[in-house]
Amino acid sequence: MTAFPQTPRNRVRRIPERARYEKNEIYTILDEALVCHVGIVTEEGPLVLPMLPGRLEDTLYLHGAPASRLLKHISQGGEVCITATLVDGLVLARSIFHHSVNYRSAVLFGKGRPVEKEDEKLRALEVISEHVCPGRWDEARRPSPRELAATAVVAVEIESASAKVRSGPVNDDPADAAWPVWAGVLPLELHAGEPLPSEGVNLPPPPTVTSYRRGKRAG
Amino acid sequence: MTAFPQTPRNRVRRIPERARYEKNEIYTILDEALVCHVGIVTEEGPLVLPMLPGRLEDTLYLHGAPASRLLKHISQGGEVCITATLVDGLVLARSIFHHSVNYRSAVLFGKGRPVEKEDEKLRALEVISEHVCPGRWDEARRPSPRELAATAVVAVEIESASAKVRSGPVNDDPADAAWPVWAGVLPLELHAGEPLPSEGVNLPPPPTVTSYRRGKRAG
Repeated sequence: MTAFPQTPRNRVRRIPERARYEKNEIYTILDEALVCHVGIVTEEGPLVLPMLPGRLEDTLYLHGAPASRLLKHISQGGEVCITATLVDGLVLARSIFHHSVNYRSAVLFGKGRPVEKEDEKLRALEVISEHVCPGRWDEARRPSPRELAATAVVAVEIESASAKVRSGPVNDDPADAAWPVWAGVLPLELHAGEPLPSEGVNLPPPPTVTSYRRGKRAG
Repeated sequence: MTAFPQTPRNRVRRIPERARYEKNEIYTILDEALVCHVGIVTEEGPLVLPMLPGRLEDTLYLHGAPASRLLKHISQGGEVCITATLVDGLVLARSIFHHSVNYRSAVLFGKGRPVEKEDEKLRALEVISEHVCPGRWDEARRPSPRELAATAVVAVEIESASAKVRSGPVNDDPADAAWPVWAGVLPLELHAGEPLPSEGVNLPPPPTVTSYRRGKRAG
């Protein structure tokens, strides 16, 4: 399967020409976003928390403390919605009405399961680590058995998903062409600053740090 | 009320020393984040979509197309969870276990209502516009009655909220001090690039565009 079938759950209703159902496009957005927002249904209503995802094919891994309410819910098979959003720029039209944002967002649906076997747990943590900072897994000290036991990992099997993308220039009304204001797109991008070494570090930062960027990666 | 009372709904359970309940701190995070993630409960489970918020005291405004499923749900009084996350840097420890992210996240809860009176609708759109690009409301052509009618606006009265903040350096185990890897914090920030003018624009970009940044604003 290279695209998700359109269903009432994942269909993009507003501006369908911005919709994407191909796995490759959806996963590229998820992989480029550092953080995703994970939604569950609790007794009191919806709960949305930011998490660091890691993806292996159609499986999304999340980790945290064993006492995490969100992870417990997901490990018990709860329905999950995971949304990742990249903002690429402000679309500044001559009219307020035609203002917009260039963005790429991915919305994924699935059910959770616990990850308890040590080999899958370790693989999941590697995938999350590589999502956050590619190459770091091979440089840092890997988790000890005690540390692994102190980390909860859950998996969400992605059953359905879609993405929505707005790109390109302003769509102003021709009638507003003479409105006396600058109009155009202001690009926005997440930039890395100067690395701040920990106390006692005498090594230079490696390329995993100095070349860090949230670029488009293989889907 | 300058802080939200702690309840089972908004209490931060994991690492409570990172929790914030003061309105000023929570709203500063929401105001600085360009996008928020809005969670509702649908018949099929949780749904989380990115939106551009605008806040006026304890009221959060959202807008979109009148046919939007999310806005319809919110306008009918549905329970909403709104989460905004700012990522300030990667925390790169010597051990994978102590890797982290410096972040500020705000999680808000409330119920929705429709915004239909023209004066509140216009005020809400101004607040959202000023959230996205401060100053733009006074430069661009304001919404016409026809455009206002083509825009749905909803309000969420914020009943409860909390924030969670991680900042500062790496917390490595002293036993890992000699591990042969660079450790430290890599700051991350959203940067604006060079403005790209629309066709036919002969004016220079104004300071609202050239000085654009998502800085900390009054709470």
